Amino acid sequence: MTGKKRVVSGMRTTGKLHLGHHHGVLTNWLKLQDDYDCYFFAADWHALTSEYQDPAIVKESTRDIFIDWLSVGIDPEKATLFIQSEIKEHAELHLLLSMITPLPWLLRNPTYKDSQSDEGQGGDDATYGFLGYPVLQAADIIIYKANLVPIGVDQLPHVELTREITRRFNHLYGDTFPVPEPILTELSKVTGLDGRKMSKSYNNAILLSDDETELKKKVSSMVTDVQRARRKDPGDPEKCNLFPLHPLYSNKAEIDEICAACPKAEIGCVDCKKILLKNLIAGLAPVHEKQRYYRDNDKLLDEIIANGNAQARAITRETMLEVRKAVKLG
Amino acid sequence: MTGKKRVVSGMRTTGKLHLGHHHGVLTNWLKLQDDYDCYFFAADWHALTSEYQDPAIVKESTRDIFIDWLSVGIDPEKATLFIQSEIKEHAELHLLLSMITPLPWLLRNPTYKDSQSDEGQGGDDATYGFLGYPVLQAADIIIYKANLVPIGVDQLPHVELTREITRRFNHLYGDTFPVPEPILTELSKVTGLDGRKMSKSYNNAILLSDDETELKKKVSSMVTDVQRARRKDPGDPEKCNLFPLHPLYSNKAEIDEICAACPKAEIGCVDCKKILLKNLIAGLAPVHEKQRYYRDNDKLLDEIIANGNAQARAITRETMLEVRKAVKLG
Repeated sequence: MTGKKRVVSGMRTTGKLHLGHHHGVLTNWLKLQDDYDCYFFAADWHALTSEYQDPAIVKESTRDIFIDWLSVGIDPEKATLFIQSEIKEHAELHLLLSMITPLPWLLRNPTYKDSQSDEGQGGDDATYGFLGYPVLQAADIIIYKANLVPIGVDQLPHVELTREITRRFNHLYGDTFPVPEPILTELSKVTGLDGRKMSKSYNNAILLSDDETELKKKVSSMVTDVQRARRKDPGDPEKCNLFPLHPLYSNKAEIDEICAACPKAEIGCVDCKKILLKNLIAGLAPVHEKQRYYRDNDKLLDEIIANGNAQARAITRETMLEVRKAVKLG
Repeated sequence: MTGKKRVVSGMRTTGKLHLGHHHGVLTNWLKLQDDYDCYFFAADWHALTSEYQDPAIVKESTRDIFIDWLSVGIDPEKATLFIQSEIKEHAELHLLLSMITPLPWLLRNPTYKDSQSDEGQGGDDATYGFLGYPVLQAADIIIYKANLVPIGVDQLPHVELTREITRRFNHLYGDTFPVPEPILTELSKVTGLDGRKMSKSYNNAILLSDDETELKKKVSSMVTDVQRARRKDPGDPEKCNLFPLHPLYSNKAEIDEICAACPKAEIGCVDCKKILLKNLIAGLAPVHEKQRYYRDNDKLLDEIIANGNAQARAITRETMLEVRKAVKLG
């Protein structure tokens, strides 16, 4: 025991990671791993809520995601990295929590409600597991007796459900789990190539693994300030879809210059993109190098994953002994 | 492999077994164990769908139920007897099946629908796990690749759901499970002391473990033919709540006599009850003897349960290797 507070966070394995993940989640994980006892997991069971019809991507991305985590600096010496589906105890606790979770709590959950009015996402196709997403999430978190859960504000209703389920368990069976607190993290400002939220499903993402050719193609195609129709029109970095990437990859002098020149039409979008591309390539170079390293060292990666799984399993086994005793099934 | 077809059946552990279980389920299991490769389990996770608020009864009854099974002749050499919650693979498969089970299938399930219009049973208190009962049941059955499921006609919608879920799994991930067939078994005609269905929750049951004093008290209190208000009124065995017990415990001569004398008021209910009580005590004597034997042989019972669990676990582990491969998570 480290005496540090414990943090649990997961990432669905539905494809390769992109800059949105990097600056929205992983930058935050990098800070957390220094201050807390962190458990970061590849949420492959959760991935099935959307990918069950064609789950090959789930397993493929699990390995890629580990490589990406490691390549941006997530450190298995500091944080426990594991695969959800390798820790069967999550499924057992999920089943037990399902018995005490009132159905109306789930039917009220915004993610489920939105899906019902959205033909594309869930609609009539919503599955039992999709409805129960927050129950599995609660199991994932409390099985480690987490104190803190880092989330964006859009995830607040889910953590609130985790807290409700935890309180209900403690009330029915005696104090077993700490009620975890959310740590609100700023949502990523990185938008996708087309100006919408960067997302695999929109096909508008710059991947952490994109090579120079790919980066060049994608940056060239990026929507900038849609008001700036011609080169001689003045632009507005505040309204530009590409600009938020500059502070993440370009230096202060470059940014200052862009901010001064763009509104006077002294710099065009093509030039601005060139600056970004150069810095993006440079910024991702060390990440790409590490990606290559882990890709070439299968055994090392296997070992890191196996170690993390073993650490996670040891904790969940202990928790489940307690849980079974509390529920009087042990 | 025996080459025999495989049968799976479970019993919720919500209290001691009564004559309704004996003549409704166990008599049938006794036949099945001779002809099929049988897996009979104590459904303690299922019991939580109703007992989660006070689950002590679940564990208590699990041992009692095993004793009752063995005491009526269920034979661990013929059938595999195990405890559901000891086989964690059920929980894992349950989670995977939850991802592919469309919510409307469950919302249409009569048991759930009835609970919504019945204040007492589920109503607004219905939990996620209560809704998902058929998903867990499907996992329980197909994880053994069962061919046959013995059920009463009231359980048909549940088995139909198991079949639908199985077909959907096979369709999505390739043929993995046989689609189990129901074997319809006659519902028990044993009614409770008050004329309603014999049930622990109605507090109207004659338990397999009731001693002579208890049996006497209960048989005396039994409702008979409600039309027969006075001793001198003619009775009708066809309308008598107690009569169906006679064919189970009394001999042909006694039954013939009752059938002849009752409609002519030549025998009163008190005398008829005396005959039944005598035969019930005699009929349950060997069961009680065996109950005492297993109660006094804790270690033997432990061993039987541990062996059954180990056999069940070996099969489910193998099945889950296949399942994970099919779902591409293994």
